Amino acid sequence: MLHHSIQLVDRRQDVTLTTYILADSPEILNGKKRPAVLVCPGGAYLNCSDREAEPVALRFAAMGYHAFVLRYSTYFEGAGTFPPAKDLPVNPNSLYPAPLRDIGRAFLTIRAHADAWLVDVDKIAICGFSAGGHNCAMYAVKWHDPVICDFFGAAPEAFKPAAAILGYAICDYRLMFREIADPFIRDLGDAADIAYFGTKTPTPEQLAAASPVLHVSKHTPPTFLWATAADPVVPAENSTRMASALAAAGVPFELHVFENGGHGLSLADQATAGSLWDTDADAAQWIDLAGAWLKKRFAL
Amino acid sequence: MLHHSIQLVDRRQDVTLTTYILADSPEILNGKKRPAVLVCPGGAYLNCSDREAEPVALRFAAMGYHAFVLRYSTYFEGAGTFPPAKDLPVNPNSLYPAPLRDIGRAFLTIRAHADAWLVDVDKIAICGFSAGGHNCAMYAVKWHDPVICDFFGAAPEAFKPAAAILGYAICDYRLMFREIADPFIRDLGDAADIAYFGTKTPTPEQLAAASPVLHVSKHTPPTFLWATAADPVVPAENSTRMASALAAAGVPFELHVFENGGHGLSLADQATAGSLWDTDADAAQWIDLAGAWLKKRFAL
Repeated sequence: MLHHSIQLVDRRQDVTLTTYILADSPEILNGKKRPAVLVCPGGAYLNCSDREAEPVALRFAAMGYHAFVLRYSTYFEGAGTFPPAKDLPVNPNSLYPAPLRDIGRAFLTIRAHADAWLVDVDKIAICGFSAGGHNCAMYAVKWHDPVICDFFGAAPEAFKPAAAILGYAICDYRLMFREIADPFIRDLGDAADIAYFGTKTPTPEQLAAASPVLHVSKHTPPTFLWATAADPVVPAENSTRMASALAAAGVPFELHVFENGGHGLSLADQATAGSLWDTDADAAQWIDLAGAWLKKRFAL
Repeated sequence: MLHHSIQLVDRRQDVTLTTYILADSPEILNGKKRPAVLVCPGGAYLNCSDREAEPVALRFAAMGYHAFVLRYSTYFEGAGTFPPAKDLPVNPNSLYPAPLRDIGRAFLTIRAHADAWLVDVDKIAICGFSAGGHNCAMYAVKWHDPVICDFFGAAPEAFKPAAAILGYAICDYRLMFREIADPFIRDLGDAADIAYFGTKTPTPEQLAAASPVLHVSKHTPPTFLWATAADPVVPAENSTRMASALAAAGVPFELHVFENGGHGLSLADQATAGSLWDTDADAAQWIDLAGAWLKKRFAL
Protein backbone atom coordinates (compact mmCIF):
# COMPACT_ATOMS: atom_id res chain seq x y z
CA MET A 1 0.00 0.00 0.00
CA LEU A 2 1.15 3.48 -0.82
CA HIS A 3 -0.15 5.63 1.98
CA HIS A 4 0.63 9.31 2.14
CA SER A 5 -1.02 12.73 2.16
CA ILE A 6 -0.63 15.24 -0.62
CA GLN A 7 -1.24 18.94 -0.07
CA LEU A 8 -3.49 20.09 -2.92
CA VAL A 9 -3.37 23.88 -2.47
CA ASP A 10 -0.25 25.98 -1.94
CA ARG A 11 0.08 27.34 1.60
CA ARG A 12 -3.03 25.47 2.74
CA GLN A 13 -2.33 22.49 4.96
CA ASP A 14 -6.02 21.66 5.31
CA VAL A 15 -6.80 20.59 1.75
CA THR A 16 -5.24 17.16 1.31
CA LEU A 17 -5.58 13.97 -0.68
CA THR A 18 -4.65 10.93 1.39
CA THR A 19 -3.88 7.82 -0.63
CA TYR A 20 -4.63 4.17 0.09
CA ILE A 21 -3.07 2.76 -3.07
CA LEU A 22 -3.14 -1.03 -3.09
CA ALA A 23 0.13 -2.83 -3.69
CA ASP A 24 0.45 -4.34 -7.12
CA SER A 25 1.28 -8.05 -7.21
CA PRO A 26 2.03 -10.54 -10.00
CA GLU A 27 -0.37 -12.84 -8.14
CA ILE A 28 -3.35 -10.50 -8.39
CA LEU A 29 -3.74 -7.77 -11.02
CA ASN A 30 -0.14 -7.97 -12.19
CA GLY A 31 0.22 -4.38 -13.36
CA LYS A 32 -3.37 -3.84 -14.46
CA LYS A 33 -5.08 -0.65 -13.41
CA ARG A 34 -7.76 -0.65 -10.73
CA PRO A 35 -10.85 1.50 -10.15
CA ALA A 36 -10.74 3.97 -7.29
CA VAL A 37 -13.08 5.56 -4.77
CA LEU A 38 -12.60 9.13 -3.55
CA VAL A 39 -14.09 9.64 -0.09
CA CYS A 40 -15.35 13.06 1.06
CA PRO A 41 -16.12 13.13 4.80
CA GLY A 42 -18.94 15.24 6.15
CA GLY A 43 -18.83 17.91 8.84
CA ALA A 44 -21.31 20.66 7.91
CA TYR A 45 -18.60 22.43 5.88
CA LEU A 46 -17.09 23.27 9.26
CA ASN A 47 -14.55 20.44 9.32
CA CYS A 48 -13.95 16.98 7.85
CA SER A 49 -15.00 14.15 10.17
CA ASP A 50 -12.43 11.43 10.84
CA ARG A 51 -15.32 8.99 11.26
CA GLU A 52 -16.21 9.37 7.59
CA ALA A 53 -12.63 9.31 6.31
CA GLU A 54 -10.03 6.55 6.79
CA PRO A 55 -12.38 3.77 7.97
CA VAL A 56 -14.55 4.24 4.87
CA ALA A 57 -11.51 4.35 2.59
CA LEU A 58 -10.29 1.10 4.14
CA ARG A 59 -13.62 -0.55 3.46
CA PHE A 60 -13.39 0.30 -0.24
CA ALA A 61 -9.71 -0.67 -0.29
CA ALA A 62 -10.74 -4.04 1.15
CA MET A 63 -13.01 -4.47 -1.91
CA GLY A 64 -9.94 -4.25 -4.14
CA TYR A 65 -10.27 -0.60 -5.15
CA HIS A 66 -7.73 2.10 -4.60
CA ALA A 67 -9.12 4.60 -2.14
CA PHE A 68 -8.52 8.24 -1.39
CA VAL A 69 -9.69 10.58 1.33
CA LEU A 70 -10.16 14.19 0.27
CA ARG A 71 -10.11 16.76 3.03
CA TYR A 72 -11.66 19.68 1.16
CA SER A 73 -11.96 23.34 2.17
CA THR A 74 -13.98 23.81 5.35
CA TYR A 75 -14.53 26.66 7.77
CA PHE A 76 -12.18 25.47 10.49
CA GLU A 77 -9.51 24.30 8.04
CA GLY A 78 -8.93 20.95 9.67
CA ALA A 79 -10.53 18.17 11.65
CA GLY A 80 -12.02 18.98 15.01
CA THR A 81 -15.21 19.14 16.98
CA PHE A 82 -18.10 21.45 16.32
CA PRO A 83 -17.84 24.76 18.19
CA PRO A 84 -20.69 26.86 19.46
CA ALA A 85 -21.39 28.57 16.16
CA LYS A 86 -23.22 31.86 16.20
CA ASP A 87 -22.29 35.00 14.31
CA LEU A 88 -19.08 33.51 13.00
CA PRO A 89 -17.12 35.80 10.71
CA VAL A 90 -16.98 34.68 7.08
CA ASN A 91 -13.98 32.55 6.10
CA PRO A 92 -13.43 33.18 2.37
CA ASN A 93 -11.54 29.88 2.03
CA SER A 94 -14.59 27.71 2.73
CA LEU A 95 -17.13 29.50 0.51
CA TYR A 96 -18.67 27.82 -2.52
CA PRO A 97 -17.21 26.88 -4.99
CA ALA A 98 -13.98 26.18 -3.09
CA PRO A 99 -15.02 22.75 -1.69
CA LEU A 100 -16.38 21.73 -5.11
CA ARG A 101 -13.19 22.70 -6.90
CA ASP A 102 -11.17 20.69 -4.39
CA ILE A 103 -12.81 17.55 -5.80
CA GLY A 104 -11.71 18.72 -9.25
CA ARG A 105 -8.19 19.14 -7.86
CA ALA A 106 -8.30 15.61 -6.52
CA PHE A 107 -9.33 14.28 -9.95
CA LEU A 108 -6.46 16.13 -11.66
CA THR A 109 -4.00 14.83 -9.06
CA ILE A 110 -5.19 11.24 -9.40
CA ARG A 111 -5.04 11.49 -13.21
CA ALA A 112 -1.51 12.91 -13.05
CA HIS A 113 -0.39 9.86 -11.02
CA ALA A 114 -2.59 7.28 -12.73
CA ASP A 115 0.28 5.35 -14.34
CA ALA A 116 2.40 5.25 -11.21
CA TRP A 117 -0.54 4.38 -8.96
CA LEU A 118 -2.20 2.05 -11.50
CA VAL A 119 -5.54 3.86 -11.35
CA ASP A 120 -8.17 3.28 -14.04
CA VAL A 121 -9.20 6.92 -14.47
CA ASP A 122 -12.39 5.93 -16.26
CA LYS A 123 -13.53 4.26 -13.06
CA ILE A 124 -13.26 6.79 -10.26
CA ALA A 125 -16.25 6.93 -7.94
CA ILE A 126 -16.92 9.68 -5.45
CA CYS A 127 -18.39 8.84 -2.04
CA GLY A 128 -19.52 11.50 0.40
CA PHE A 129 -21.46 11.83 3.61
CA SER A 130 -23.69 14.66 4.84
CA ALA A 131 -21.99 17.91 3.74
CA GLY A 132 -19.33 15.78 2.01
CA GLY A 133 -22.25 14.04 0.29
CA HIS A 134 -23.53 17.43 -0.75
CA ASN A 135 -20.11 18.30 -2.12
CA CYS A 136 -20.08 15.02 -4.07
CA ALA A 137 -23.67 15.50 -5.27
CA MET A 138 -22.78 19.01 -6.45
CA TYR A 139 -19.75 17.57 -8.22
CA ALA A 140 -21.89 14.82 -9.77
CA VAL A 141 -24.11 17.46 -11.39
CA LYS A 142 -21.39 20.05 -12.10
CA TRP A 143 -18.18 18.18 -13.04
CA HIS A 144 -18.55 19.41 -16.64
CA ASP A 145 -19.46 22.99 -15.64
CA PRO A 146 -17.19 26.00 -16.31
CA VAL A 147 -17.05 26.59 -12.54
CA ILE A 148 -14.67 23.63 -12.52
CA CYS A 149 -13.34 23.16 -16.07
CA ASP A 150 -12.66 26.82 -16.89
CA PHE A 151 -11.16 27.42 -13.48
CA PHE A 152 -8.57 24.69 -14.03
CA GLY A 153 -8.34 25.21 -17.81
CA ALA A 154 -8.89 21.53 -18.48
CA ALA A 155 -11.35 19.60 -20.64
CA PRO A 156 -14.47 18.29 -18.86
CA GLU A 157 -13.42 14.67 -19.47
CA ALA A 158 -10.59 15.09 -16.95
CA PHE A 159 -13.14 15.55 -14.19
CA LYS A 160 -15.73 12.92 -15.04
CA PRO A 161 -16.75 10.68 -12.14
CA ALA A 162 -17.88 7.15 -12.99
CA ALA A 163 -20.28 6.86 -10.08
CA ALA A 164 -21.42 8.69 -6.97
CA ILE A 165 -22.23 7.21 -3.55
CA LEU A 166 -24.11 9.60 -1.32
CA GLY A 167 -24.76 8.93 2.37
CA TYR A 168 -27.37 11.08 4.19
CA ALA A 169 -26.33 13.80 1.78
CA ILE A 170 -27.77 17.29 1.50
CA CYS A 171 -29.26 17.14 -1.98
CA ASP A 172 -31.87 19.88 -1.64
CA TYR A 173 -30.59 22.81 0.38
CA ARG A 174 -34.08 24.30 0.45
CA LEU A 175 -35.04 21.56 2.92
CA MET A 176 -32.25 22.29 5.33
CA PHE A 177 -32.31 23.73 8.79
CA ARG A 178 -35.00 26.35 8.20
CA GLU A 179 -37.78 24.76 10.21
CA ILE A 180 -35.89 22.68 12.74
CA ALA A 181 -36.83 23.24 16.37
CA ASP A 182 -33.73 21.83 18.04
CA PRO A 183 -31.56 24.87 18.84
CA PHE A 184 -28.29 22.92 18.46
CA ILE A 185 -29.18 21.73 14.98
CA ARG A 186 -30.45 25.16 13.98
CA ASP A 187 -27.24 26.71 15.23
CA LEU A 188 -25.25 24.11 13.33
CA GLY A 189 -27.24 24.99 10.23
CA ASP A 190 -26.45 28.66 10.68
CA ALA A 191 -22.76 27.90 11.01
CA ALA A 192 -22.85 25.64 7.94
CA ASP A 193 -24.55 28.37 5.95
CA ILE A 194 -21.92 30.90 6.99
CA ALA A 195 -19.20 28.42 6.01
CA TYR A 196 -20.65 27.63 2.57
CA PHE A 197 -22.70 30.68 1.57
CA GLY A 198 -21.02 33.38 3.67
CA THR A 199 -24.33 34.23 5.35
CA LYS A 200 -26.71 32.52 7.69
CA THR A 201 -29.58 33.77 5.56
CA PRO A 202 -28.80 32.54 2.04
CA THR A 203 -31.19 33.79 -0.65
CA PRO A 204 -33.60 31.43 -2.41
CA GLU A 205 -31.33 31.78 -5.46
CA GLN A 206 -28.28 30.69 -3.46
CA LEU A 207 -30.16 27.72 -2.03
CA ALA A 208 -31.40 26.68 -5.46
CA ALA A 209 -27.93 26.99 -6.98
CA ALA A 210 -26.60 24.70 -4.24
CA SER A 211 -29.34 22.08 -4.57
CA PRO A 212 -28.18 19.15 -6.71
CA VAL A 213 -31.76 17.95 -7.15
CA LEU A 214 -32.30 20.95 -9.44
CA HIS A 215 -29.25 20.28 -11.63
CA VAL A 216 -29.39 16.58 -12.44
CA SER A 217 -28.83 15.91 -16.15
CA LYS A 218 -27.89 13.09 -18.47
CA HIS A 219 -24.27 13.88 -17.54
CA THR A 220 -24.87 12.97 -13.89
CA PRO A 221 -23.17 9.63 -13.17
CA PRO A 222 -24.96 6.54 -11.83
CA THR A 223 -25.68 7.22 -8.18
CA PHE A 224 -26.12 5.13 -5.05
CA LEU A 225 -28.01 6.88 -2.26
CA TRP A 226 -28.63 5.86 1.32
CA ALA A 227 -30.12 7.56 4.33
CA THR A 228 -32.14 6.88 7.47
CA ALA A 229 -35.77 7.98 7.65
CA ALA A 230 -35.21 9.02 11.28
CA ASP A 231 -32.30 11.38 10.48
CA PRO A 232 -33.04 14.56 12.50
CA VAL A 233 -30.35 16.69 10.83
CA VAL A 234 -30.49 16.00 7.10
CA PRO A 235 -34.03 14.86 6.32
CA ALA A 236 -34.23 11.67 4.28
CA GLU A 237 -36.29 13.62 1.79
CA ASN A 238 -33.00 14.97 0.49
CA SER A 239 -32.23 11.47 -0.75
CA THR A 240 -35.71 10.61 -1.98
CA ARG A 241 -35.96 13.85 -3.96
CA MET A 242 -32.53 13.22 -5.45
CA ALA A 243 -33.64 9.72 -6.43
CA SER A 244 -36.73 11.21 -8.10
CA ALA A 245 -34.58 13.67 -10.02
CA LEU A 246 -32.24 10.88 -11.16
CA ALA A 247 -35.23 8.76 -12.18
CA ALA A 248 -36.71 11.64 -14.15
CA ALA A 249 -33.41 12.19 -15.95
CA GLY A 250 -32.98 8.50 -16.72
CA VAL A 251 -29.80 8.23 -14.66
CA PRO A 252 -29.23 4.76 -13.13
CA PHE A 253 -29.56 4.90 -9.38
CA GLU A 254 -30.07 2.81 -6.28
CA LEU A 255 -31.64 4.06 -3.05
CA HIS A 256 -31.80 2.56 0.43
CA VAL A 257 -33.61 4.39 3.21
CA PHE A 258 -33.36 2.53 6.52
CA GLU A 259 -36.13 3.23 9.01
CA ASN A 260 -34.00 3.87 12.09
CA GLY A 261 -30.68 5.51 12.82
CA GLY A 262 -29.53 9.04 13.51
CA HIS A 263 -27.39 11.39 11.48
CA GLY A 264 -23.74 10.71 10.73
CA LEU A 265 -23.68 6.92 11.02
CA SER A 266 -20.79 6.53 8.58
CA LEU A 267 -20.27 2.73 8.39
CA ALA A 268 -22.68 2.37 11.33
CA ASP A 269 -20.43 -0.28 12.85
CA GLN A 270 -17.69 -0.35 15.45
CA ALA A 271 -15.05 0.78 12.95
CA THR A 272 -16.55 4.27 12.82
CA ALA A 273 -18.38 4.49 16.12
CA GLY A 274 -17.56 6.98 18.84
CA SER A 275 -20.28 5.35 20.94
CA LEU A 276 -23.02 2.74 20.60
CA TRP A 277 -25.30 5.50 19.28
CA ASP A 278 -23.20 5.49 16.13
CA THR A 279 -23.93 1.84 15.35
CA ASP A 280 -26.96 0.33 13.67
CA ALA A 281 -26.92 -3.22 12.35
CA ASP A 282 -29.59 -2.50 9.74
CA ALA A 283 -28.08 0.69 8.36
CA ALA A 284 -24.62 -0.93 8.42
CA GLN A 285 -25.75 -3.00 5.45
CA TRP A 286 -25.36 0.02 3.17
CA ILE A 287 -21.66 -0.53 2.53
CA ASP A 288 -22.15 -4.10 1.28
CA LEU A 289 -25.09 -2.93 -0.84
CA ALA A 290 -22.90 -0.15 -2.21
CA GLY A 291 -20.10 -2.64 -2.84
CA ALA A 292 -22.43 -4.91 -4.81
CA TRP A 293 -23.73 -1.94 -6.78
CA LEU A 294 -20.23 -0.67 -7.48
CA LYS A 295 -19.05 -4.10 -8.56
CA LYS A 296 -21.59 -4.08 -11.38
CA ARG A 297 -19.56 -1.19 -12.81
CA PHE A 298 -16.12 -1.72 -11.35
CA ALA A 299 -15.61 -5.50 -11.39
CA LEU A 300 -11.89 -6.18 -11.59
CA MET B 1 -2.85 4.92 9.22
CA LEU B 2 0.72 4.10 10.05
CA HIS B 3 1.92 1.88 7.26
CA HIS B 4 5.47 0.65 7.14
CA SER B 5 7.54 -2.52 7.11
CA ILE B 6 9.86 -3.51 9.93
CA GLN B 7 12.72 -5.95 9.40
CA LEU B 8 12.51 -8.50 12.22
CA VAL B 9 15.81 -10.35 11.78
CA ASP B 10 19.22 -8.75 11.30
CA ARG B 11 20.59 -9.15 7.78
CA ARG B 12 17.39 -10.85 6.62
CA GLN B 13 15.23 -8.70 4.37
CA ASP B 14 12.62 -11.42 3.98
CA VAL B 15 11.26 -11.54 7.52
CA THR B 16 9.15 -8.44 7.96
CA LEU B 17 6.22 -7.09 9.91
CA THR B 18 4.12 -4.70 7.83
CA THR B 19 1.84 -2.45 9.85
CA TYR B 20 -1.66 -1.21 9.09
CA ILE B 21 -2.10 0.84 12.27
CA LEU B 22 -5.38 2.74 12.27
CA ALA B 23 -5.23 6.47 12.88
CA ASP B 24 -6.40 7.50 16.31
CA SER B 25 -9.13 10.13 16.38
CA PRO B 26 -10.90 12.05 19.17
CA GLU B 27 -14.10 11.20 17.27
CA ILE B 28 -13.65 7.44 17.51
CA LEU B 29 -11.54 5.67 20.15
CA ASN B 30 -9.85 8.85 21.36
CA GLY B 31 -6.61 7.31 22.54
CA LYS B 32 -8.01 3.95 23.62
CA LYS B 33 -6.14 0.83 22.57
CA ARG B 34 -7.50 -1.45 19.86
CA PRO B 35 -7.27 -5.20 19.25
CA ALA B 36 -5.07 -6.37 16.41
CA VAL B 37 -4.89 -9.18 13.88
CA LEU B 38 -1.58 -10.60 12.68
CA VAL B 39 -1.88 -12.13 9.20
CA CYS B 40 0.41 -14.96 8.07
CA PRO B 41 0.11 -15.64 4.33
CA GLY B 42 0.46 -19.14 2.95
CA GLY B 43 2.86 -20.40 0.31
CA ALA B 44 3.90 -23.97 1.23
CA TYR B 45 6.79 -22.57 3.29
CA LEU B 46 8.34 -21.70 -0.06
CA ASN B 47 7.22 -18.07 -0.12
CA CYS B 48 4.54 -15.76 1.33
CA SER B 49 1.62 -15.17 -1.01
CA ASP B 50 0.63 -11.56 -1.67
CA ARG B 51 -2.95 -12.77 -2.14
CA GLU B 52 -3.11 -13.77 1.52
CA ALA B 53 -1.35 -10.67 2.83
CA GLU B 54 -2.35 -7.01 2.34
CA PRO B 55 -5.93 -7.57 1.15
CA VAL B 56 -6.69 -9.69 4.22
CA ALA B 57 -5.03 -7.16 6.54
CA LEU B 58 -7.18 -4.43 4.97
CA ARG B 59 -10.32 -6.43 5.61
CA PHE B 60 -9.51 -6.69 9.31
CA ALA B 61 -8.44 -3.04 9.40
CA ALA B 62 -11.84 -2.17 7.94
CA MET B 63 -13.42 -3.90 10.96
CA GLY B 64 -11.67 -1.40 13.23
CA TYR B 65 -8.72 -3.58 14.25
CA HIS B 66 -5.09 -2.81 13.74
CA ALA B 67 -3.65 -5.28 11.27
CA PHE B 68 -0.20 -6.65 10.55
CA VAL B 69 1.21 -8.84 7.84
CA LEU B 70 4.04 -11.12 8.92
CA ARG B 71 6.31 -12.38 6.18
CA TYR B 72 7.97 -15.24 8.05
CA SER B 73 10.95 -17.38 7.07
CA THR B 74 10.35 -19.33 3.88
CA TYR B 75 12.54 -21.29 1.48
CA PHE B 76 12.77 -18.63 -1.24
CA GLU B 77 13.09 -15.76 1.23
CA GLY B 78 10.54 -13.51 -0.39
CA ALA B 79 7.39 -13.42 -2.45
CA GLY B 80 7.36 -15.12 -5.82
CA THR B 81 5.90 -17.94 -7.82
CA PHE B 82 6.34 -21.61 -7.17
CA PRO B 83 9.31 -23.11 -9.00
CA PRO B 84 9.65 -26.66 -10.26
CA ALA B 85 10.72 -28.12 -6.93
CA LYS B 86 12.59 -31.39 -6.99
CA ASP B 87 15.72 -32.20 -5.07
CA LEU B 88 16.10 -28.69 -3.74
CA PRO B 89 19.05 -28.21 -1.41
CA VAL B 90 18.11 -27.52 2.20
CA ASN B 91 17.84 -23.87 3.20
CA PRO B 92 18.62 -23.74 6.94
CA ASN B 93 16.77 -20.42 7.26
CA SER B 94 13.34 -21.89 6.52
CA LEU B 95 13.54 -25.00 8.72
CA TYR B 96 11.28 -25.46 11.73
CA PRO B 97 11.21 -23.74 14.21
CA ALA B 98 12.30 -20.60 12.33
CA PRO B 99 8.85 -19.73 10.91
CA LEU B 100 7.22 -20.38 14.29
CA ARG B 101 9.69 -18.15 16.12
CA ASP B 102 9.03 -15.38 13.62
CA ILE B 103 5.49 -15.15 14.98
CA GLY B 104 7.01 -14.83 18.45
CA ARG B 105 9.23 -12.05 17.10
CA ALA B 106 6.15 -10.29 15.74
CA PHE B 107 4.45 -10.50 19.14
CA LEU B 108 7.49 -9.02 20.89
CA THR B 109 7.68 -6.24 18.32
CA ILE B 110 3.99 -5.39 18.63
CA ARG B 111 4.25 -5.41 22.43
CA ALA B 112 7.29 -3.12 22.31
CA HIS B 113 5.29 -0.57 20.29
CA ALA B 114 1.92 -1.13 21.97
CA ASP B 115 1.74 2.31 23.59
CA ALA B 116 2.78 4.19 20.48
CA TRP B 117 0.55 2.13 18.20
CA LEU B 118 -2.33 1.92 20.70
CA VAL B 119 -2.51 -1.88 20.53
CA ASP B 120 -4.39 -3.84 23.18
CA VAL B 121 -1.82 -6.61 23.61
CA ASP B 122 -4.33 -8.84 25.38
CA LYS B 123 -6.33 -8.93 22.16
CA ILE B 124 -3.99 -9.99 19.38
CA ALA B 125 -5.40 -12.61 17.03
CA ILE B 126 -3.36 -14.60 14.54
CA CYS B 127 -4.81 -15.40 11.12
CA GLY B 128 -3.10 -17.73 8.69
CA PHE B 129 -3.78 -19.53 5.45
CA SER B 130 -2.50 -22.90 4.23
CA ALA B 131 1.15 -23.14 5.37
CA GLY B 132 0.67 -19.79 7.10
CA GLY B 133 -2.34 -21.37 8.78
CA HIS B 134 -0.10 -24.25 9.83
CA ASN B 135 2.40 -21.78 11.25
CA CYS B 136 -0.42 -20.07 13.17
CA ALA B 137 -1.87 -23.38 14.35
CA MET B 138 1.57 -24.45 15.56
CA TYR B 139 1.88 -21.12 17.35
CA ALA B 140 -1.57 -21.54 18.85
CA VAL B 141 -0.49 -24.81 20.47
CA LYS B 142 3.13 -23.83 21.24
CA TRP B 143 3.19 -20.12 22.18
CA HIS B 144 4.01 -21.10 25.79
CA ASP B 145 6.61 -23.71 24.80
CA PRO B 146 10.35 -23.34 25.51
CA VAL B 147 10.97 -23.52 21.75
CA ILE B 148 9.66 -19.94 21.74
CA CYS B 149 9.92 -18.57 25.30
CA ASP B 150 13.38 -19.89 26.15
CA PHE B 151 14.72 -18.91 22.76
CA PHE B 152 13.71 -15.28 23.31
CA GLY B 153 14.23 -15.37 27.09
CA ALA B 154 10.79 -13.93 27.73
CA ALA B 155 7.85 -15.05 29.85
CA PRO B 156 5.12 -17.02 28.05
CA GLU B 157 2.57 -14.25 28.64
CA ALA B 158 4.41 -12.06 26.14
CA PHE B 159 3.53 -14.46 23.36
CA LYS B 160 -0.08 -15.31 24.18
CA PRO B 161 -2.49 -15.01 21.25
CA ALA B 162 -6.10 -14.14 22.06
CA ALA B 163 -7.56 -16.04 19.13
CA ALA B 164 -6.56 -17.95 16.02
CA ILE B 165 -8.20 -17.84 12.59
CA LEU B 166 -7.12 -20.69 10.35
CA GLY B 167 -7.98 -20.87 6.66
CA TYR B 168 -7.47 -24.20 4.82
CA ALA B 169 -4.63 -24.74 7.25
CA ILE B 170 -2.41 -27.78 7.55
CA CYS B 171 -3.33 -29.01 11.01
CA ASP B 172 -2.34 -32.65 10.65
CA TYR B 173 0.85 -33.07 8.67
CA ARG B 174 0.33 -36.82 8.59
CA LEU B 175 -2.47 -36.20 6.08
CA MET B 176 -0.38 -34.19 3.71
CA PHE B 177 0.84 -34.98 0.26
CA ARG B 178 1.66 -38.62 0.87
CA GLU B 179 -1.08 -40.18 -1.21
CA ILE B 180 -1.87 -37.46 -3.71
CA ALA B 181 -1.86 -38.54 -7.35
CA ASP B 182 -1.45 -35.13 -9.00
CA PRO B 183 2.29 -34.85 -9.76
CA PHE B 184 2.32 -31.05 -9.38
CA ILE B 185 0.81 -31.21 -5.92
CA ARG B 186 3.08 -34.11 -4.92
CA ASP B 187 6.08 -32.13 -6.11
CA LEU B 188 4.87 -29.09 -4.19
CA GLY B 189 4.54 -31.25 -1.10
CA ASP B 190 8.11 -32.51 -1.53
CA ALA B 191 9.37 -28.94 -1.83
CA ALA B 192 7.36 -27.85 1.23
CA ASP B 193 8.80 -30.75 3.22
CA ILE B 194 12.33 -29.80 2.21
CA ALA B 195 11.61 -26.20 3.20
CA TYR B 196 10.14 -27.05 6.62
CA PHE B 197 11.69 -30.38 7.62
CA GLY B 198 14.88 -30.32 5.56
CA THR B 199 13.92 -33.57 3.86
CA LYS B 200 11.26 -34.73 1.48
CA THR B 201 10.83 -37.84 3.59
CA PRO B 202 10.14 -36.56 7.12
CA THR B 203 9.94 -39.25 9.78
CA PRO B 204 6.66 -40.10 11.51
CA GLU B 205 8.09 -38.36 14.56
CA GLN B 206 8.75 -35.18 12.60
CA LEU B 207 5.25 -35.24 11.13
CA ALA B 208 3.69 -35.79 14.54
CA ALA B 209 5.72 -32.99 16.08
CA ALA B 210 4.50 -30.65 13.34
CA SER B 211 0.82 -31.64 13.64
CA PRO B 212 -1.10 -29.13 15.76
CA VAL B 213 -3.99 -31.58 16.17
CA LEU B 214 -1.74 -33.61 18.47
CA HIS B 215 -0.75 -30.68 20.68
CA VAL B 216 -4.00 -28.89 21.47
CA SER B 217 -4.32 -28.08 25.17
CA LYS B 218 -6.28 -25.83 27.48
CA HIS B 219 -3.71 -23.14 26.61
CA THR B 220 -4.76 -23.15 22.95
CA PRO B 221 -6.72 -19.96 22.21
CA PRO B 222 -10.28 -19.89 20.84
CA THR B 223 -10.03 -20.84 17.18
CA PHE B 224 -12.02 -20.10 14.03
CA LEU B 225 -11.47 -22.62 11.24
CA TRP B 226 -12.62 -22.59 7.66
CA ALA B 227 -11.91 -24.74 4.63
CA THR B 228 -13.49 -26.09 1.47
CA ALA B 229 -14.44 -29.76 1.25
CA ALA B 230 -13.22 -29.80 -2.36
CA ASP B 231 -9.70 -28.54 -1.53
CA PRO B 232 -7.34 -30.81 -3.52
CA VAL B 233 -4.14 -29.63 -1.83
CA VAL B 234 -4.84 -29.42 1.90
CA PRO B 235 -7.66 -31.87 2.64
CA ALA B 236 -10.52 -30.39 4.66
CA GLU B 237 -9.95 -33.19 7.15
CA ASN B 238 -7.10 -31.06 8.49
CA SER B 239 -9.70 -28.61 9.72
CA THR B 240 -12.26 -31.14 10.90
CA ARG B 241 -9.64 -33.06 12.89
CA MET B 242 -8.43 -29.80 14.43
CA ALA B 243 -11.99 -28.94 15.37
CA SER B 244 -12.34 -32.36 17.01
CA ALA B 245 -9.14 -31.80 18.98
CA LEU B 246 -10.33 -28.37 20.13
CA ALA B 247 -13.70 -29.82 21.10
CA ALA B 248 -12.02 -32.60 23.08
CA ALA B 249 -9.86 -30.06 24.91
CA GLY B 250 -12.80 -27.79 25.66
CA VAL B 251 -11.37 -24.93 23.63
CA PRO B 252 -14.03 -22.62 22.09
CA PHE B 253 -14.03 -22.98 18.32
CA GLU B 254 -16.07 -22.31 15.22
CA LEU B 255 -15.77 -24.28 11.97
CA HIS B 256 -17.09 -23.61 8.49
CA VAL B 257 -16.43 -26.09 5.70
CA PHE B 258 -17.86 -24.89 2.37
CA GLU B 259 -18.67 -27.61 -0.13
CA ASN B 260 -16.99 -26.09 -3.18
CA GLY B 261 -13.87 -24.10 -3.87
CA GLY B 262 -10.23 -24.93 -4.55
CA HIS B 263 -7.15 -24.34 -2.47
CA GLY B 264 -5.86 -20.88 -1.68
CA LEU B 265 -9.05 -18.87 -2.00
CA SER B 266 -7.92 -16.20 0.47
CA LEU B 267 -10.90 -13.79 0.65
CA ALA B 268 -12.43 -15.65 -2.33
CA ASP B 269 -13.52 -12.34 -3.83
CA GLN B 270 -12.13 -9.94 -6.40
CA ALA B 271 -9.83 -8.28 -3.88
CA THR B 272 -7.61 -11.36 -3.75
CA ALA B 273 -8.34 -13.04 -7.07
CA GLY B 274 -5.75 -13.60 -9.75
CA SER B 275 -8.52 -15.09 -11.88
CA LEU B 276 -12.17 -16.08 -11.60
CA TRP B 277 -11.01 -19.48 -10.26
CA ASP B 278 -9.97 -17.66 -7.12
CA THR B 279 -13.49 -16.40 -6.36
CA ASP B 280 -16.36 -18.23 -4.71
CA ALA B 281 -19.40 -16.36 -3.41
CA ASP B 282 -20.17 -19.05 -0.82
CA ALA B 283 -16.68 -19.41 0.59
CA ALA B 284 -16.29 -15.61 0.55
CA GLN B 285 -18.67 -15.52 3.50
CA TRP B 286 -15.91 -16.77 5.80
CA ILE B 287 -14.48 -13.32 6.48
CA ASP B 288 -17.80 -11.91 7.70
CA LEU B 289 -18.33 -15.03 9.78
CA ALA B 290 -14.83 -14.61 11.20
CA GLY B 291 -15.54 -10.93 11.83
CA ALA B 292 -18.70 -11.76 13.77
CA TRP B 293 -16.84 -14.43 15.73
CA LEU B 294 -13.95 -12.09 16.48
CA LYS B 295 -16.29 -9.31 17.55
CA LYS B 296 -17.60 -11.52 20.35
CA ARG B 297 -14.09 -11.27 21.83
CA PHE B 298 -12.76 -8.05 20.39
CA ALA B 299 -15.74 -5.65 20.41
CA LEU B 300 -14.39 -2.13 20.65
